Amino acid sequence: MLAFSRLRSTITSSPSDKVLTLPKINQAVVNCEYAVRGALAIRAEELREELASKRTAHPFAKVTSCNIGNPQQLGQTPITFFRQVAALTEYPALLDAPGVADIFAPDAVERARALLQAVGGSVGAYTHSQGIPLIRQNVAKFIEERDGYPSDPDDIFLTAGASPGVQLILQTLIAHEKVGIMIPVPQYPLYTASIALFRGNAVPYFLNEEDTWGLDVNELIRSVKDARANGLDVRALCVINPGNPTGACLNVDNMRKIVELCHSEKLVLLADEVYQTNTYLPSVPFTSFKKVLRSMGPEFSSLELVSFHSISKGMVGECGRRGGYFECVGVSDEVKEMLYKVASISLCPPAQGQVLVDLMVRPPVKGDASYARYKEEIDGIYESLKRRAARLAAAFNALPGVSCQPAQGSMYLFPSVTLPQKAVETAKAQGMAPDALYCMELLNETGVCVVPGSGFHQKKGTWHFRSTFLPPEKEMESFVARIKGFHEGFLKRYA
Amino acid sequence: MLAFSRLRSTITSSPSDKVLTLPKINQAVVNCEYAVRGALAIRAEELREELASKRTAHPFAKVTSCNIGNPQQLGQTPITFFRQVAALTEYPALLDAPGVADIFAPDAVERARALLQAVGGSVGAYTHSQGIPLIRQNVAKFIEERDGYPSDPDDIFLTAGASPGVQLILQTLIAHEKVGIMIPVPQYPLYTASIALFRGNAVPYFLNEEDTWGLDVNELIRSVKDARANGLDVRALCVINPGNPTGACLNVDNMRKIVELCHSEKLVLLADEVYQTNTYLPSVPFTSFKKVLRSMGPEFSSLELVSFHSISKGMVGECGRRGGYFECVGVSDEVKEMLYKVASISLCPPAQGQVLVDLMVRPPVKGDASYARYKEEIDGIYESLKRRAARLAAAFNALPGVSCQPAQGSMYLFPSVTLPQKAVETAKAQGMAPDALYCMELLNETGVCVVPGSGFHQKKGTWHFRSTFLPPEKEMESFVARIKGFHEGFLKRYA
Repeated sequence: MLAFSRLRSTITSSPSDKVLTLPKINQAVVNCEYAVRGALAIRAEELREELASKRTAHPFAKVTSCNIGNPQQLGQTPITFFRQVAALTEYPALLDAPGVADIFAPDAVERARALLQAVGGSVGAYTHSQGIPLIRQNVAKFIEERDGYPSDPDDIFLTAGASPGVQLILQTLIAHEKVGIMIPVPQYPLYTASIALFRGNAVPYFLNEEDTWGLDVNELIRSVKDARANGLDVRALCVINPGNPTGACLNVDNMRKIVELCHSEKLVLLADEVYQTNTYLPSVPFTSFKKVLRSMGPEFSSLELVSFHSISKGMVGECGRRGGYFECVGVSDEVKEMLYKVASISLCPPAQGQVLVDLMVRPPVKGDASYARYKEEIDGIYESLKRRAARLAAAFNALPGVSCQPAQGSMYLFPSVTLPQKAVETAKAQGMAPDALYCMELLNETGVCVVPGSGFHQKKGTWHFRSTFLPPEKEMESFVARIKGFHEGFLKRYA
Repeated sequence: MLAFSRLRSTITSSPSDKVLTLPKINQAVVNCEYAVRGALAIRAEELREELASKRTAHPFAKVTSCNIGNPQQLGQTPITFFRQVAALTEYPALLDAPGVADIFAPDAVERARALLQAVGGSVGAYTHSQGIPLIRQNVAKFIEERDGYPSDPDDIFLTAGASPGVQLILQTLIAHEKVGIMIPVPQYPLYTASIALFRGNAVPYFLNEEDTWGLDVNELIRSVKDARANGLDVRALCVINPGNPTGACLNVDNMRKIVELCHSEKLVLLADEVYQTNTYLPSVPFTSFKKVLRSMGPEFSSLELVSFHSISKGMVGECGRRGGYFECVGVSDEVKEMLYKVASISLCPPAQGQVLVDLMVRPPVKGDASYARYKEEIDGIYESLKRRAARLAAAFNALPGVSCQPAQGSMYLFPSVTLPQKAVETAKAQGMAPDALYCMELLNETGVCVVPGSGFHQKKGTWHFRSTFLPPEKEMESFVARIKGFHEGFLKRYA
């Protein structure tokens, strides 16, 4: 497949008797950009195929995809309890098979039976479009226990991962072409891509790299005022906490100020909280925006908040199943009906994604047969992520011209790279962003796939890349060495 | 939850300090309608909860959902081979567990190993956004064997069921507010709902009920000419074959004329072929539009065709997993790149949905360990569907004032009902469509949930409902008796 960047120049070659040509189709489709799976990811697929077919020689044995938080692709082992329940719901004959007790834990058998009953006997049936009622009840209980405030299952929408939930809310908010949605810079490209698809306007607010990518409320105020002065109907503020791509975690005092701002400026608060269990510093634990909002009393009770969660992140990492949920807080019944209606057009989220939402929010607890194993697996993944985050940040900081903030949370590092002038000029001559040139050469030389900072947006004149810290620990030193070797060669080449 | 019909009147009650209110949000979201899961389905959920909690007495013991083609909800047993492979991919430890050979067929074990390798070891990882390459290759082989013409895996997009695929193509086609998409009347409401969401225009062409819901090409010509005369930019023709809700199957001669029309009028042909194995009359077997198009020679090779298929229908009926694919024929590489880019924003279709696409297109064949059981299960479901279609059509035709075309294909009957004048007036006084009144009373009296014809659109002055013929055979006679009793009472009540 062609890289997107090469496509633009071929527009004129469209045969004119076709309907589906770039000039004729929806220009929002043509113009939106999604860097995480863009030119770099496509080139990575090509390299992977070339390595498999041995058609072309490369100076590396495999492609390491650090462009996307996809833990199981890089060897993270699924949680045993989760997969036991999934297998039993897929093939219920196992529940009564001889020897089942030797293979499956009794609490997995019990949970599978309960879930099968909740789906009416088969995970192959369409479920309720908003999600299986029992699982929504369990999500609400989980939120209540996490925050200490009530949660209503009718406010919970199960989704096929966080992304379709975010898209549903953005589609609903963007009523006309002047609607503005505030997003952090750097941001996760889902936001700019979806806002472009629905023909709204991304209103950037800049995170402060020097302050560990902190969020300054004065910058939010500047952003909303500027956008409104430019005629935009600013309706919502997206906050990603813990941050993607930055890894930054917000403290409660900061979050209260954000809630106050949303209240005074009448903004819907969209809280992307999918990395809520990926926090690595005891000084900045995760607190949900729902909890902060509720703690601020009735004055703020009319605020509209939508919080997103996912089974793809955390120590769960079950990306391929597509599961997640959002909770609506302060959203009117009539608008929830509209969300339900649009969700129903796609019939239902995948049943196995829903099953895993249940397992994520209701894992084995002390006294359960699977508890010890579950805890060991979760703790093992968590401690390893924490070590890898620190190791990779240190490695980046040891490279000349590279500066990397520590990962307080999430699965990413977003180092800043000072690129030689000659590299900047070469990139411009090729019609590429300089950091895209850097990342493409890194990929072609080492097989390491990361995403250029330009795909996430960044302050003018700065260059970054986003890398997950997901390569397995046993490969970390060679991974670091590959990047180091490339970086030094790059600096020499463009000196 | 409130029924949608009751919502409209509450618009004025929106608190003005909210952003998410019906007057302020995207009006395309407010205005789109999706009857299959509309007021009737919501009421059915309420009744189901009331029966379960025993809060309210009802003159029936359970709700029978015939509003949606959801076979496993009504007790259809999943195909054993499919579920064995799914369970093994979920919990690969089973592959090496003691006694596995007593539980799983050897070809299921082999297939699971191959699929696990194709996904890189875990169904919990994001896959390629266009779908797992191996599975796309297998889909292409399946299409080649079905049609006798080449198919390219790069033209195949795996999807989360047919619906998201249809939505992706409609979103791409609808470049501005004058774009028209031709759809049959009656239609499957996915089309009107999605066209409304993307702010395009549904251009109806009427199927001929008296001619077994046949598709007359002269009516297509009338439709496209009228719409263009009214200033619409008509870009695509949707054909649902076998028909939903009509059950009609197209013959090859008819299909050739449709291809000729699309070619001369420069229309993209959208072929909804999800019921391709649900055909019950040997005189009208399924033929794909791809095969018809290819058989017509190079003159038509520039035609753009997108064909949709799904794991939710056929004898597979795996709705809850969300799997399917579309094949692009004659679509330019640059537009396929755009489809890939938009698909990538949602990351990937559910891995278990993709696994089942593989199983659907590559089932056990003669000589495989699972073949005999697979064939017995598939044939059993098929023969039963055929008997139920005939039984229910006969039952409908025996009701006074009801006329029902036979189901040549799909899973639905769409009988026409002559409603008494008093019922029509009562419905109008309540702000309901008369067939919606009929269906709501049927649901409240018998627990049988069907969809009013008004949800699918229909010729003015005619009334219909759509019912699946999926209730199990052992319940069919009591199901028919409940409908008969209600119908006779309804006629008396409104005489």
